[in-house]
Amino acid sequence: MLDPRVDRLQRIAATKRGVVSLAGALPARELIPQAELARVLAEVARREEALQYGWVEGTASLRAWIADRLRARGAEIDADRVIVTAGAQQALAITASVLGGGDKTVTVGDATYPGALDAFGYGGLRAVERGGAIQYVMPGVSNPHGVDLGIDDAGGTIIADEAYTELRFDGRTPRPLLAGADARVWHIGTISKTIAPGLRVGWLIAPTEAHAAALEAKQAMDLQSASLSQEALARLLAAFDFDAHLARVRACYADRAAALTQALRRHAPALRFREPEGGFSVWAELDDAMDEVALLAAALREGVMVDPGSAFRPDRRGPLAVRIGFAHAAPETLVEGARRLARAIGAGPRSS
Amino acid sequence: MLDPRVDRLQRIAATKRGVVSLAGALPARELIPQAELARVLAEVARREEALQYGWVEGTASLRAWIADRLRARGAEIDADRVIVTAGAQQALAITASVLGGGDKTVTVGDATYPGALDAFGYGGLRAVERGGAIQYVMPGVSNPHGVDLGIDDAGGTIIADEAYTELRFDGRTPRPLLAGADARVWHIGTISKTIAPGLRVGWLIAPTEAHAAALEAKQAMDLQSASLSQEALARLLAAFDFDAHLARVRACYADRAAALTQALRRHAPALRFREPEGGFSVWAELDDAMDEVALLAAALREGVMVDPGSAFRPDRRGPLAVRIGFAHAAPETLVEGARRLARAIGAGPRSS
Repeated sequence: MLDPRVDRLQRIAATKRGVVSLAGALPARELIPQAELARVLAEVARREEALQYGWVEGTASLRAWIADRLRARGAEIDADRVIVTAGAQQALAITASVLGGGDKTVTVGDATYPGALDAFGYGGLRAVERGGAIQYVMPGVSNPHGVDLGIDDAGGTIIADEAYTELRFDGRTPRPLLAGADARVWHIGTISKTIAPGLRVGWLIAPTEAHAAALEAKQAMDLQSASLSQEALARLLAAFDFDAHLARVRACYADRAAALTQALRRHAPALRFREPEGGFSVWAELDDAMDEVALLAAALREGVMVDPGSAFRPDRRGPLAVRIGFAHAAPETLVEGARRLARAIGAGPRSS
Repeated sequence: MLDPRVDRLQRIAATKRGVVSLAGALPARELIPQAELARVLAEVARREEALQYGWVEGTASLRAWIADRLRARGAEIDADRVIVTAGAQQALAITASVLGGGDKTVTVGDATYPGALDAFGYGGLRAVERGGAIQYVMPGVSNPHGVDLGIDDAGGTIIADEAYTELRFDGRTPRPLLAGADARVWHIGTISKTIAPGLRVGWLIAPTEAHAAALEAKQAMDLQSASLSQEALARLLAAFDFDAHLARVRACYADRAAALTQALRRHAPALRFREPEGGFSVWAELDDAMDEVALLAAALREGVMVDPGSAFRPDRRGPLAVRIGFAHAAPETLVEGARRLARAIGAGPRSS
């Protein structure tokens, strides 16, 4: 959970006129297939299945689509192994609740998705930078780093979170870790970054022997994911060229990433970052000993907001860093945001 | 979680042609405001808020509606105390995760909602028939009993699940337990029984001092409830006479309850039950020493399905009983279902 002071600053930033918000990991509104979703929603709302209770594991046609795509990528997975979840977040929460307990540890690296840290905490999995019993990885594109960090697979249990895997700018989507290792890989996917987060649809494929326990956890948590979202999504995907959509999405985000990094290099040379290979964000570290909350407060005064690096650290502390999101802002807005952030870095009060 | 053998029988029953399903607690399809929902869905799908990420606590207009209704019933609650959840189930899971641990116990009575038992189990709250540290109650209408069981309020922590509270056939909705006791009452509500379960929208009002912990649990579980469902529902409720809708809903369920109980008295005199005062079900006990799974298998052979009583018991065992749902079937179907159930009771193999 976010520092309450940071939460307050981010909420002000989100509603204050003129503030450039580069916080959060929101997809571009232009890339959400809104017209198509409106059409399928109008269709499914007439059918009882979309508004009634469904089974805990999710809508059959959606599970079949998920399994088909994994098979096309080389993982021989049947639809009956797919559990539809409320986004990747719930898949993480289920995974943690089944795997956690007894001071078990999970390796997450130097920085990772804050929601994973929350889910692990709730499930009783202690997140550590290295040396954990279980490994949490984001194949292809790591959040917040925006690059492929690679995987040092020692043959143990892996939680593979594919939230950004299909969003590499080069379009090279890696083979699922699940392929050939489905007895030890917990596979997590979502449409939150590629289609629309507001539907809250993700999925989990647990090792076969843990499938029943994962379903039980899902049922205890919320009975089932929203029938409406699942039915609409299944219908959308049946008549939608998802690969062509992904190509458009990747091209747009690649342009935005380039606009941001160019502006950061020009205006904020104090920031050290790697050129993103995909995803939604730049992970930038600073030598400056500025206090993190003071940096965000200064950023807000300058009219820009980013995410605090500490939220991504397994111990919630570490070298000063920020995550700068480029997915939800137009290129010219990103340039202006970079300018403002540079002023905040130069102008903020120093910590004692 | 259900006995896998019962789960199998229920899944067969749900898809087999001609089987009368009186299992589950599905609202009548005729009472889901489908046309109105289709209209608001078409409207909200054009707006980014419905498809984008939102805040963990939920959509402001929906929270305001929930608080307004509680205030109209005598509980002085501000909208900022409302947490929108994925149905009442997630509200129970959050409550259990905040209250649970350290062998804490919760009183649930002789039989209760199986989802509450699941949620309590996951959160580390041990369900007991009586004498627990915390009390779980369903004001106005208890599930599965279908009657008001009353509340023996000893002044301790209460989890008040209002899933059926506004569905008393006499329309006498009790004052929320929250009124005047909001420092010790966890209030849970939902639109699953009154509007549509497939949206997965419920809510939780936690005691003020536990609000932050509840929000943190919600965030770890799924970040937020579906924006689409929340935006559609908020829009529906803004232009919908909910009280007139409730009056129609209650009248329909009262008719169905009467049709079922009349048929049960006539055809299945071995069943002992109280006349429902509201809700979706009749809770019927049997003297017969028939094995429960055998009874359900016999019921399926006769072409009817009901819920096994053991699923509702805090220790998952107890005197033979069934829950018979009347909400999702037309009166003539209920009569036929009662006939078939009577044959199953008379014809099933006895346990050794």
